[in-house]
Amino acid sequence: MSRIPTHNDIRNAYEKIKFYTNKTPVLTSSTFNEACSGSVFFKCENFQKVGAFKFRGVCNTVLSLDKNELSGGVVTHSSGNHAAALSLAAKLSGIPAYIIMPSNTLSVKVNAVKYYGGTITFCEPTLAARESTAERIMKETGSTLVHSYDDYRIIAGAATAAYEFLEEVPDLDYLLAPVGGGGLISGTALSAHYSERDVTVIACEPEKANDAYLSFKEGRIVKVPTTDTIADGLRTILSDKTFGIISKYVSEIVTVTENEIINAMRFVWERMKIIIEPSSAVPAAALLSGKIKTDGKKTGVIITGGNVDLQNLPFSSKQG
Amino acid sequence: MSRIPTHNDIRNAYEKIKFYTNKTPVLTSSTFNEACSGSVFFKCENFQKVGAFKFRGVCNTVLSLDKNELSGGVVTHSSGNHAAALSLAAKLSGIPAYIIMPSNTLSVKVNAVKYYGGTITFCEPTLAARESTAERIMKETGSTLVHSYDDYRIIAGAATAAYEFLEEVPDLDYLLAPVGGGGLISGTALSAHYSERDVTVIACEPEKANDAYLSFKEGRIVKVPTTDTIADGLRTILSDKTFGIISKYVSEIVTVTENEIINAMRFVWERMKIIIEPSSAVPAAALLSGKIKTDGKKTGVIITGGNVDLQNLPFSSKQG
Repeated sequence: MSRIPTHNDIRNAYEKIKFYTNKTPVLTSSTFNEACSGSVFFKCENFQKVGAFKFRGVCNTVLSLDKNELSGGVVTHSSGNHAAALSLAAKLSGIPAYIIMPSNTLSVKVNAVKYYGGTITFCEPTLAARESTAERIMKETGSTLVHSYDDYRIIAGAATAAYEFLEEVPDLDYLLAPVGGGGLISGTALSAHYSERDVTVIACEPEKANDAYLSFKEGRIVKVPTTDTIADGLRTILSDKTFGIISKYVSEIVTVTENEIINAMRFVWERMKIIIEPSSAVPAAALLSGKIKTDGKKTGVIITGGNVDLQNLPFSSKQG
Repeated sequence: MSRIPTHNDIRNAYEKIKFYTNKTPVLTSSTFNEACSGSVFFKCENFQKVGAFKFRGVCNTVLSLDKNELSGGVVTHSSGNHAAALSLAAKLSGIPAYIIMPSNTLSVKVNAVKYYGGTITFCEPTLAARESTAERIMKETGSTLVHSYDDYRIIAGAATAAYEFLEEVPDLDYLLAPVGGGGLISGTALSAHYSERDVTVIACEPEKANDAYLSFKEGRIVKVPTTDTIADGLRTILSDKTFGIISKYVSEIVTVTENEIINAMRFVWERMKIIIEPSSAVPAAALLSGKIKTDGKKTGVIITGGNVDLQNLPFSSKQG
């Protein structure tokens, strides 16, 4: 797909993936509402297949491949949810998934890929090594690269989360999602735009990986030297495709601190009893910290995923 | 209420409390289904007010008190969810709640009671001290004792969870709940019985606190010397009221080991992305360990609560 997804592209993606994905629930919490004096609705993609919204985009992409592209399987380099999602989508399509992972990837992430049947190749933990290893595997296997966000099919698939959300809760005033590489927020902004409703889309980002915030402000893609945030799903930077959509359809980008992220994650775990990963806590942090004022308004939040290492949680007696 | 709750008592309780309680969602997990070769439905009372089914019984009881009984407030001794539930029910009724807690109660439980406005009196960590302190507070304040399970109003309220569950999923073959003092399983068995459906009710219990198992087997209330289980909500023993109902309406009691409980808890956290407390993992453990065979059947499980101390989780690299 070589153009920004249209309304029809998103509807088609939705029809295509709906048999394979979960229609995730929308949850509310009176405690959360009290804490930010508004009505907040959480679209729980942590309950999606593989525990993350990523499966939507990958599923749409794999189902869009032609026979020729499918024949050698699919390949990606990723240490996160994209790797597990691609492994499952490939498995459902009966093709191999080759996953390049940095040698320092957490065992919990490695195990997820193994569980869904992906074939792992480890490489040095640098972007150059990841890319060159992917090149090599592509040549050796004839597999097709599936990028985790710089792909309009991925964006159209990711857009189905907000599409489904707005079908269930049509009268939202605000719609929030985190921004990392920008696949989800791009799709979210497109779905909101096409819904023709008066919903303001706000991207939320960790201060420590604020490339989207800076890019949005300066009107060009800005790279930041380090992205050392606990929100491991948001350490990636914008691509031309996602920056293009974000510049046009997102209203604002709000940043939050590491402490705000951890406190929000803890609030959601303790009060709402759902497991969300740090990246998912970023929009909740923007609300709980009062950085986005939604008094008396209806706000939708996309909870992006729930994959965490239970042996390595950020809660200590110092927080909260 | 001086008799075993009738069908009407449970329906009345449901009508009475429904404005104050959450209609909790029923969740399913394809991974869990695969793991036990059946269809399992989880009634998520961890999403109930105060994070536990306990609020149902307490709410029904407080709403059943007359003016005279309400005037001095309510009192209980509890270190668990009952204490938080009574505090909230009292707050909603505009009366004080006096909570007696053992001096060694975890701060997370103390904080929950404070959060809901209960007035705490600490005592020595013995049953004798708890009861005598409650007696004293009753005399001093004129408050009314609300026991956590040895009360037919509590049982009728607890029964509304299964009542609501069977309304949503009417064709269950099995219905599972943990047993501690027996309030929940009694109510569950009554709701199943009155539904006139062919549903088998099974109680699940930790081996380390197997008083209900032994009592059921021997036909009389058996006390066990220690109840040192991680399932802190199930350390209590049956009362005459709950034993009477269980003997008549429960089909079987199945016990599980501590490791089975921890592994099941971890499975639910990791795969289903919901936070459940160890007591809630007991029926899941009975299924995942194969101690209850439900191949091809539809099984309902009541998830009792989700209150845990995030600083003190039972997961280490040894498990799973």
